[in-house]
Amino acid sequence: MRYGVLGTGMVGQTLATRLAELGHEVMMGSRRADNQEAEAWRQRTGIRAHVGTFRDTAAFGDTLFNCTQGAVSSAVLQSVDANDLVEKILIDVANPLVLSPGTPPALTICNTDSLGERLQRELPRTKVVKTLNTCNCRVMVDPARAGGDHDVFVCGNDAGAKETVKALLRDFGWKTIIDLGDITGARATEQLMPIWLRLYGIYGSADFNFKIVRS
Amino acid sequence: MRYGVLGTGMVGQTLATRLAELGHEVMMGSRRADNQEAEAWRQRTGIRAHVGTFRDTAAFGDTLFNCTQGAVSSAVLQSVDANDLVEKILIDVANPLVLSPGTPPALTICNTDSLGERLQRELPRTKVVKTLNTCNCRVMVDPARAGGDHDVFVCGNDAGAKETVKALLRDFGWKTIIDLGDITGARATEQLMPIWLRLYGIYGSADFNFKIVRS
Repeated sequence: MRYGVLGTGMVGQTLATRLAELGHEVMMGSRRADNQEAEAWRQRTGIRAHVGTFRDTAAFGDTLFNCTQGAVSSAVLQSVDANDLVEKILIDVANPLVLSPGTPPALTICNTDSLGERLQRELPRTKVVKTLNTCNCRVMVDPARAGGDHDVFVCGNDAGAKETVKALLRDFGWKTIIDLGDITGARATEQLMPIWLRLYGIYGSADFNFKIVRS
Repeated sequence: MRYGVLGTGMVGQTLATRLAELGHEVMMGSRRADNQEAEAWRQRTGIRAHVGTFRDTAAFGDTLFNCTQGAVSSAVLQSVDANDLVEKILIDVANPLVLSPGTPPALTICNTDSLGERLQRELPRTKVVKTLNTCNCRVMVDPARAGGDHDVFVCGNDAGAKETVKALLRDFGWKTIIDLGDITGARATEQLMPIWLRLYGIYGSADFNFKIVRS
């Protein structure tokens, strides 16, 4: 499988590395083709690692990961050739968070809308699947880091796309995958950010995750 | 201890019954002194159960529970004698949810504010402690209903008030209590409502709860 990872931050790098480790061809995309972080990642990661612009990356991937900051995700996806997004799965792991010094973290979209829904509205012919946005990126690709048994959430409008994504999540090591239904479930998972950030501040570590306990 | 429970809905009745079972004197308050649900509860519950207006209840309780609907909580608390709230603990278990047929549930306050914070701003001499608002009322008073080990969150500005509330939570059967710090933590817990409601729809049962798993 060929994956296109949009974004060169820690989330993009961690996911892209794990995908290459699993034997996939991976291109990491950024605004400029000569992005130094992407190039360093390529050199570290080996022959399955490729770099390019966002546009190159959308063309390269059979399946795409949105690892850009939530505030710019729409603009990034609008900057690529729209034909390269048609019928593809877009795995959206981003959160529409504003993290600026001196102000408490807040969501720029929430409650009656979500980033996942917005991307699905803007890309009606793309299969947006929201997942993995409720934990740190190192837990995303290695759930055992958070210890014990815990959950990852998936939502999206296309049942087949969700099954494909669930199979990849199992490859990452996830055992319990909770399907929240259609893409409006993204409201629910993106709104876990405030408690996640609060707990991160308390624990001083990102190696934790949510679990739903049932009788 | 004398508790005043504001609200006669299922949450108020469940908490008031449990408090009486634990040996406390409890008054359940409502808009009108002749509220039939409150009177039926009093007759069922026995000698430690009392009923009255919101005003009577605020005067009666050493500690108060806000079990009114989030949309009316401010108005209810403003309708009582302000002197009856001074220096008392107000345990706020409400969520600012709008549940109306035909529209998806949404929060009326969220992200940059919360009901807990609003009540604390409006009642600066009351010790508002937000807790228990992240699970069903039957789980609130009997955590074992949700099976296994899971968590309850507490936040508030007064450390002593939080310790008093934690002791009551332990009386209810809670083993793991996560202190989220000051009252702004209410943003984090109230924003768990969207995923709680989504999961309730999927499971068809309210006997579940959140657990934070750490390595």
